[in-house]
Amino acid sequence: MRRYRRFPHLVVAAACCLVWLHQPPRSAADPLPSWNAGKSKAALVDFVARVTDGDSPDYVPAAERIATFDNDGTLWCEKPIYVQAQFAIERVRHLAPQHPQWKTTPPMQFVLDDNMPALLQTGSRGWVELIAAAHAGHTTAEFEQTVLEWLAAARHPRFDRPYTELVYQPMLEVLEYLRANDFQTFIVSGGGSDFMRPWTAQAYGVPPQQVVGSTVVTRFELRDDKPALVRLPQLEFLDDGDGKPVGIGRSIGRVPIVAFGNSDGDLQMLQYTTMRPGPSLGLIVHHNDARREYAYDRDSDVGRLDKALDQAPRRGWIVVSMKDDWKVIFPSEAASGGD
Amino acid sequence: MRRYRRFPHLVVAAACCLVWLHQPPRSAADPLPSWNAGKSKAALVDFVARVTDGDSPDYVPAAERIATFDNDGTLWCEKPIYVQAQFAIERVRHLAPQHPQWKTTPPMQFVLDDNMPALLQTGSRGWVELIAAAHAGHTTAEFEQTVLEWLAAARHPRFDRPYTELVYQPMLEVLEYLRANDFQTFIVSGGGSDFMRPWTAQAYGVPPQQVVGSTVVTRFELRDDKPALVRLPQLEFLDDGDGKPVGIGRSIGRVPIVAFGNSDGDLQMLQYTTMRPGPSLGLIVHHNDARREYAYDRDSDVGRLDKALDQAPRRGWIVVSMKDDWKVIFPSEAASGGD
Repeated sequence: MRRYRRFPHLVVAAACCLVWLHQPPRSAADPLPSWNAGKSKAALVDFVARVTDGDSPDYVPAAERIATFDNDGTLWCEKPIYVQAQFAIERVRHLAPQHPQWKTTPPMQFVLDDNMPALLQTGSRGWVELIAAAHAGHTTAEFEQTVLEWLAAARHPRFDRPYTELVYQPMLEVLEYLRANDFQTFIVSGGGSDFMRPWTAQAYGVPPQQVVGSTVVTRFELRDDKPALVRLPQLEFLDDGDGKPVGIGRSIGRVPIVAFGNSDGDLQMLQYTTMRPGPSLGLIVHHNDARREYAYDRDSDVGRLDKALDQAPRRGWIVVSMKDDWKVIFPSEAASGGD
Repeated sequence: MRRYRRFPHLVVAAACCLVWLHQPPRSAADPLPSWNAGKSKAALVDFVARVTDGDSPDYVPAAERIATFDNDGTLWCEKPIYVQAQFAIERVRHLAPQHPQWKTTPPMQFVLDDNMPALLQTGSRGWVELIAAAHAGHTTAEFEQTVLEWLAAARHPRFDRPYTELVYQPMLEVLEYLRANDFQTFIVSGGGSDFMRPWTAQAYGVPPQQVVGSTVVTRFELRDDKPALVRLPQLEFLDDGDGKPVGIGRSIGRVPIVAFGNSDGDLQMLQYTTMRPGPSLGLIVHHNDARREYAYDRDSDVGRLDKALDQAPRRGWIVVSMKDDWKVIFPSEAASGGD
C-alpha cells in the first residue's frame, strides 16, 4: 500500500469500485435483492409505494422525501470499535512524540496507556475530542488527505479488508432504492463530518453536503494568500442522541420521513422522524448475527441498543434482524452469490 | 390580508407564483434575458461554458459544481434595512408587553426607544440576537409559521409590495441557469436559517437543506409526546464575514466554484471560493441604481461594500453594475417589458 501513499483517493476509489462491481445483478422487479422476504422488506417497499403514489393519501412530494441514516452500525461495521475510534487511536499514537504533554492529558492519555475501558467510557464525544486535539492546526484539506491515506491502508482486524468494503450490502440497496424514488439520502452520524465526507460519495452515493456529523470549531485563514479552514482543538457540535434532531434542524431544515439507526444514539432521531402526523418510517438494524458479523445490543459499549429497542414496538419502528432479514452482509459476499 | 392569516403559506405561494408567471418568455439562446450584453454577462456565460465542457481544461464534474449566493442585497432588496431586521423590530414591539424587562435590555431596548443608530451598529449579530431573544421558547415549527404570516402581510415601505416580490429578476435567472447546468445553488447568508428556509424554495428554487445561515441554539424536546426543536435565546453561529467559509465548511463540505455577494460580509466567501487553484468565479452586485433600487457602497450601514470592492480588481471578481448590467431589477418590471 506504501507506493499508493500519494494517491489515497485512488485506492479508496478502487476499493469502492470493487464493491460496486461485485454487486449482484438486480432484477427490475426487486430493488432489494439482498433482503429476504419478510416484515422488514415488506414495510420498506410498502412505505415507498405509499409515499410516491400520487393517488395515495400518504403521498409525499419529492422535495419532502428526506431519509436520514446513522452511519456506524447502520451503514458499516462498528465492531470491535468504531472505525473513527481506531483512526483516532492510531493518529494519537503516531503524533504522540510531538506532544509529550499527552502522557498526562485525558483522553489522549487513555490511548497511550492502552486503557480501553476508560477510552470507551468517553463515547462519541471522546472520539471526536481526541481527533480534534490530535489534528488541531491542520487545515480541513490536510485532514481529508490524512483520512484517505489511513483508510487506504487500514484493515479490519477480523475481516481483513479495508473498512470501506465493510459497508452493508442490503443498506447500499436501500440507499439506492430510496434515491431511485426521489428521496434525498442524508447521513446523520455521531462521527465527525470531516471524517466521513472524504469517502461517503464513493461508498454510499451520499455527497459531502448530505453528511451531517459532529464538528470541531474551524477558523478561516489566509495562509500565504491561500484560503484555508483551520481545525481548532475544540468540539463545536456533537451530533449524537439529542444532538441528531438538532443537527437535522440546523443542516437540513426539514423533518425526515424515514430514519434508520441501530443504537440509542439514534433514539431521538427516530422519535423526531416518526412521532408526528403524516407518513413516516423508523427502522433499527439489530446486530444479532455473530457468525457473519457481530451480535450485540443492550450491554455493548459500542452501539448500545437498549431504550430504542424497548420503544420500537409502541412507536411502530421496524427492527431489522441482520440474521433473518439479510441474505448477505457485505458486498464481497454478494459477489460470491450470498451464503 | 387578515382573512388569509391562517394560510400564510398560500399567500406567500401566490406571491411567488405571480412572480413566476410574470417572468418574461425565455429564448433558448439566452438563458439570462434580463442581463444586458457586457462584461458581467459574458463572464458568467463563459465560465459556465468552460466548466461544463468535458473537453475544456477547466471542466468541473457536476458533483463539484457548488455555487453560493449571499441573500440580502444579492438575491433580494436589503434597503432601507434588512428584511429580517424589520421583522425583528416588529416582533419585538409586538411581544414587548409580555417582556417588561426589555425596556432596559439592549438590543431590545434600542427597538423600543426607536434608536436606529444604535440598532444598526449591532449588525447581523444584533438582528439574529434580537430574534433569538424574541422567540426563545418557540418551536422551530411555530417560528416558521410566524415568519410566513409576517411575510404575507408586510410590504416594503418604498415599493409597496411584499418583500418576496422584491427579489432580483436577473439573479433568479442566474440561479436557474446554473441549476440547468447541473450546479447546486446554495444560499449562504448572515440572516437566520430559520428565517429564510420557510420561503426560499418558492422564491428562489433553493430548498431548506441548501440554505446556510446564522443559527440559534435549539433543544430537542418531547412536548406531550410530540417532538419539537425549541429555540433558545442564544446565538449558536453567525454566518457572516469570516463565518461564511466556516458555514460552508460545516454545512456543505466542498469549496464552491462560484460565489456571488454584495458586501464586505461576503469578502471571505469570495476569497475562499476564488483564491485557490482551479476554475472559479467571484461576483459582486454593486448597488448603483438609485432610481430603480438604491445606490450605496462604502458608507452604508446596511450592506457596506468597501474592502471587497477594493480587492475585486486584483482578485478578478466581476463587479456587476445594477444600473448598466440589469435590464430590470424586480420580476414585476420584467412583466411589463423592462424599462
